[in-house]
Amino acid sequence: MHVQKIDHIGIAVKNAAERLKFYTDFLGLKDVHTEEIKERGIRVHMIKVGESKVELLEPMNEQSEISKFLEAKGEGIHHVAFNVEGIDEAVELAKKLGFQPLSDAPRPGAGGTRVLFFHPKSVGGVLVELVEGHH
Amino acid sequence: MHVQKIDHIGIAVKNAAERLKFYTDFLGLKDVHTEEIKERGIRVHMIKVGESKVELLEPMNEQSEISKFLEAKGEGIHHVAFNVEGIDEAVELAKKLGFQPLSDAPRPGAGGTRVLFFHPKSVGGVLVELVEGHH
Repeated sequence: MHVQKIDHIGIAVKNAAERLKFYTDFLGLKDVHTEEIKERGIRVHMIKVGESKVELLEPMNEQSEISKFLEAKGEGIHHVAFNVEGIDEAVELAKKLGFQPLSDAPRPGAGGTRVLFFHPKSVGGVLVELVEGHH
Repeated sequence: MHVQKIDHIGIAVKNAAERLKFYTDFLGLKDVHTEEIKERGIRVHMIKVGESKVELLEPMNEQSEISKFLEAKGEGIHHVAFNVEGIDEAVELAKKLGFQPLSDAPRPGAGGTRVLFFHPKSVGGVLVELVEGHH
């Protein structure tokens, strides 16, 4: 497995229109792409920053995982994703080294990517996502 | 002001030797530089990832700001830093747009950089740092 870059930082927000202003009006980042993931009840606003992205995660309903996160912890950073090559090797290697993947194999992510999450308890309180591919 | 990239993600850890393993042994990131900032009681482990870095922030004593963060929130992501050009314009622009810098002007950072932090309350729960220059 080879890590290429930080793919994105996921940030949970209540109201993206309000929170986007910091990135667009203040930081001057203009490349913003919005996508609705209806089956998870999330609206994602991807803001390009260099080779990476900031992703604002906004709940579309109260059942969304982001609604639950906001209720428990409030707005803030939700996860960090690394872009990798060779994600299929990750599960076995992680188990060997004592890190805890949240699924037994990579799962389909947005735009044809494949993703794998790790339990924050095994990574010092950080929810880490590995992403293979680009969207 | 122009934003170039994510400069780094700062992560508060209790024991860096233990937490580094995820990044070095599992993710295979090998470019790690360690620096002690004695006046702030912090040991910083900078791990290069593409054009950015992951910075593990480890307390050197109980008075350190990181000790206080760990006590209040536990291990996890502490801040996100963006690398910018034109940081001197940031304070005025931020105030005009209603964002709250934590100092009246950029301050000296590690290795000749200049840095400016923003209050998490004005940025949706995210402690944001702007960095001008490279170290």
